[in-house]
Amino acid sequence: MSELIAKIREIVGASGLLQGDAVGQRSDSWPPAGGCRALAIVRPASTAEVSAVLRLCHAAGQSVVTHGGLTGLVGGGKTTPDDLVLSLERMTAIEPVDSVNRTVTVDAGAPLQKVHEAAEAAGLLFPLDLGARGTATIGGTISTNAGGNSVIRYGMIREQVLGVEAVLADGTVISSMNNVIKNNTGYDLKQLFVGSEGTLGVVTRAVLRLRPLPRSCNTALVGLDSFDALSVFLRNMDAALGGTLSAFEVMWNDFWKLLVAADDRHGQPLGAAHAFYVLLESTGGHEAGDRERFEEALHEAFEQGLIGDAVLAQSRQQRQELWAIRDDIETMFTRLYPPIAFDVSLGIPLMEDYVREVRAALTALWPAARMVTFGHLGDGNLHLVLTVGSLDPEQVHTVEKIVYEALGRRGGVISAEHGIGLQKRAYLRHSRSAEEVALMRTLKAALDPKNILNPGKILGRVPGDTGVGASP
Amino acid sequence: MSELIAKIREIVGASGLLQGDAVGQRSDSWPPAGGCRALAIVRPASTAEVSAVLRLCHAAGQSVVTHGGLTGLVGGGKTTPDDLVLSLERMTAIEPVDSVNRTVTVDAGAPLQKVHEAAEAAGLLFPLDLGARGTATIGGTISTNAGGNSVIRYGMIREQVLGVEAVLADGTVISSMNNVIKNNTGYDLKQLFVGSEGTLGVVTRAVLRLRPLPRSCNTALVGLDSFDALSVFLRNMDAALGGTLSAFEVMWNDFWKLLVAADDRHGQPLGAAHAFYVLLESTGGHEAGDRERFEEALHEAFEQGLIGDAVLAQSRQQRQELWAIRDDIETMFTRLYPPIAFDVSLGIPLMEDYVREVRAALTALWPAARMVTFGHLGDGNLHLVLTVGSLDPEQVHTVEKIVYEALGRRGGVISAEHGIGLQKRAYLRHSRSAEEVALMRTLKAALDPKNILNPGKILGRVPGDTGVGASP
Repeated sequence: MSELIAKIREIVGASGLLQGDAVGQRSDSWPPAGGCRALAIVRPASTAEVSAVLRLCHAAGQSVVTHGGLTGLVGGGKTTPDDLVLSLERMTAIEPVDSVNRTVTVDAGAPLQKVHEAAEAAGLLFPLDLGARGTATIGGTISTNAGGNSVIRYGMIREQVLGVEAVLADGTVISSMNNVIKNNTGYDLKQLFVGSEGTLGVVTRAVLRLRPLPRSCNTALVGLDSFDALSVFLRNMDAALGGTLSAFEVMWNDFWKLLVAADDRHGQPLGAAHAFYVLLESTGGHEAGDRERFEEALHEAFEQGLIGDAVLAQSRQQRQELWAIRDDIETMFTRLYPPIAFDVSLGIPLMEDYVREVRAALTALWPAARMVTFGHLGDGNLHLVLTVGSLDPEQVHTVEKIVYEALGRRGGVISAEHGIGLQKRAYLRHSRSAEEVALMRTLKAALDPKNILNPGKILGRVPGDTGVGASP
Repeated sequence: MSELIAKIREIVGASGLLQGDAVGQRSDSWPPAGGCRALAIVRPASTAEVSAVLRLCHAAGQSVVTHGGLTGLVGGGKTTPDDLVLSLERMTAIEPVDSVNRTVTVDAGAPLQKVHEAAEAAGLLFPLDLGARGTATIGGTISTNAGGNSVIRYGMIREQVLGVEAVLADGTVISSMNNVIKNNTGYDLKQLFVGSEGTLGVVTRAVLRLRPLPRSCNTALVGLDSFDALSVFLRNMDAALGGTLSAFEVMWNDFWKLLVAADDRHGQPLGAAHAFYVLLESTGGHEAGDRERFEEALHEAFEQGLIGDAVLAQSRQQRQELWAIRDDIETMFTRLYPPIAFDVSLGIPLMEDYVREVRAALTALWPAARMVTFGHLGDGNLHLVLTVGSLDPEQVHTVEKIVYEALGRRGGVISAEHGIGLQKRAYLRHSRSAEEVALMRTLKAALDPKNILNPGKILGRVPGDTGVGASP
């Protein structure tokens, strides 16, 4: 055991340290499959322990990769054999909900779903939600600025976090545990730690803002026949529902054909001829009144010729069945095997043409290529999942160039939700200027001068354009 | 004319430079009263000119104070005779509203009200609103992270800004003109420039997020007899109105007595015996339905004994009359002359006791002291305006100590909306830890190593605790 590891064991105790086989049995990415390579996995039990460990690592120049639930999709938690893993799995406390201020204070290792449950038990809502809710931790969702299904209504997690406690590379504890909505006392330091993927500090605790628990939920699936109708429909529904629209999930016809029309897996709630399908939802404070208003707004859209057909969920179960279509990513990945997935943002008016261009470029090179398109249209966020029949790195690289270059020409964003991690570093320049990247490096150097925190992620220099590169 | 000024004139032209008397006729704070002292006022016409000017100033170590509408309340725009003023008054362009993406791109010098008008002409809403709307500029509201009346619904301006263009101290242009809601491509650099009061860069342009224009607006004034009832009422209304509550302005009985009960200036819409008064408003998408729901929710609160009495605005004019009570700051300042004003945040359950303690401490020292209390309760934000009959610096300092120390003991925030500027520097430590301030200094040194941008504001070291100190 090295001297550093021995000192760390004094801090976290024997049960706070995993070494040898216990490391390799763990994973560093999703889906979990073992194979983590690292010097050791350190499992501190408190912010003070995180601070003491980082102070030692800083002095020794030891690289540290922080692990939350490991449900990220861009390799942000990937390790090398020389890294130390800092896992927050023992820091899972959730303090009692403050139901007057409508906040809850949690440790970074608390799973998202436990936070949902604590809020609901107090009659409140923590609105951030995503498929990995059972495993994803609050610290991970903060460090990746997670989005999910209700961003159109509540924003990303950046807007749900009132305060954070974070430990800097040198062990300094920055306790910015603000618990009020308004705080203009100097720089808003928590913003440094939201979305920086563990490269500027380790988030250990957070104060989260809670909202009123909705008393009503109305869900519909509609079919539309043109993109223009789609964007007018979004705008009209948002206005008619007075800001209570909480989801507006669009599926292109390619999605529908692959997952709904192909068999009876999801029944056939609507015909297969529509160009677009929208799963929309509104949550509010008045069960009967909200239902009436939702139906009225849909009826108006129908009268105006915006939508061709619609199904309203009549029960909780029917709502789940409609969401099961949108969430059937597993079947999608099976039918588009081996899949290559993208998560981009761009201006709504540019989307239709963008998707058409990408599809044309793909099929020109791979006549058998298949792609499905869906996303959070209200947020300007599209997911593309496609297959060209291979994951050969050169072919993947060609696909990435097609997707990102067409995006860059439209001022789009290469990562709406997932972050950059390792996987998207080579393409950062499609969304951010040289000056922006230089300023990011200035921040990184100021906060972590020895580059020990999650080194190589986001800003690691990538030789050529291969997407697989050396650490800085 | 110095060599530096001559070079700057080559960049901005003769009309872009004010010197001598033209400087002294201008102001550096609110209310405008002349007396600005500075080497010159530079009025660039473009981001490129701002960049060229800052490059020269950086090379020369010349301090620069950026001016927007000068409606800030903490001396953030104050100058010394050795400073150069950079005024964005010639950069006022507002691009055509993008009504599909629901964004508008504006120059930093555009007045807030012009942005409101542009959005409304396109059937959309820019929700940030405050009394100084005619004069305050977008750049100023961004650099101070302005709040205002509808934060409970839409958040501070931080949540309304999708992208910014800013110029760093050395002239580097950081163009982060993101126009989508979701962008997780590395660090969110715009956060550095929001709320940093011109100390980290000069914001020159911004992309603002717009919302659906409400179709309904319901306003009521209610009287309540206990603080407990007040906080339950807030929570119930927020839940019953399904997230459409857009203002919840509380006035303590002291406010009512001074401004409403004292004479017939505002009529007497409610009796004077209530402990608290709330002006609440809800905006939505359905005129008839929203009215019904608003009335129903108020009726329920009445039945539950939460509210004692209520007036509903029956017309646009009556709405304005109710808001005129809340907004009658001019009369307040006249009747509490000379006034000392505070803008604090703290946990809602702590407010009543906090106000009581401050009042008791004041009247113990100054038996004739008078104070009124009001604020955006839904945001945890209170304003205290008081008079002790003097603005003698030592007496003001004693008042500040009373207000901020009682706040600090409750984990409160010394500036909810107004910022720190010069005036609140001495008290920053009541809201932020030594480690937080040190990290702010690290950021300042990394982005502005020569300390030329608005030097001394926020982080300027203050000798003793006097609130009037030397620049760092």
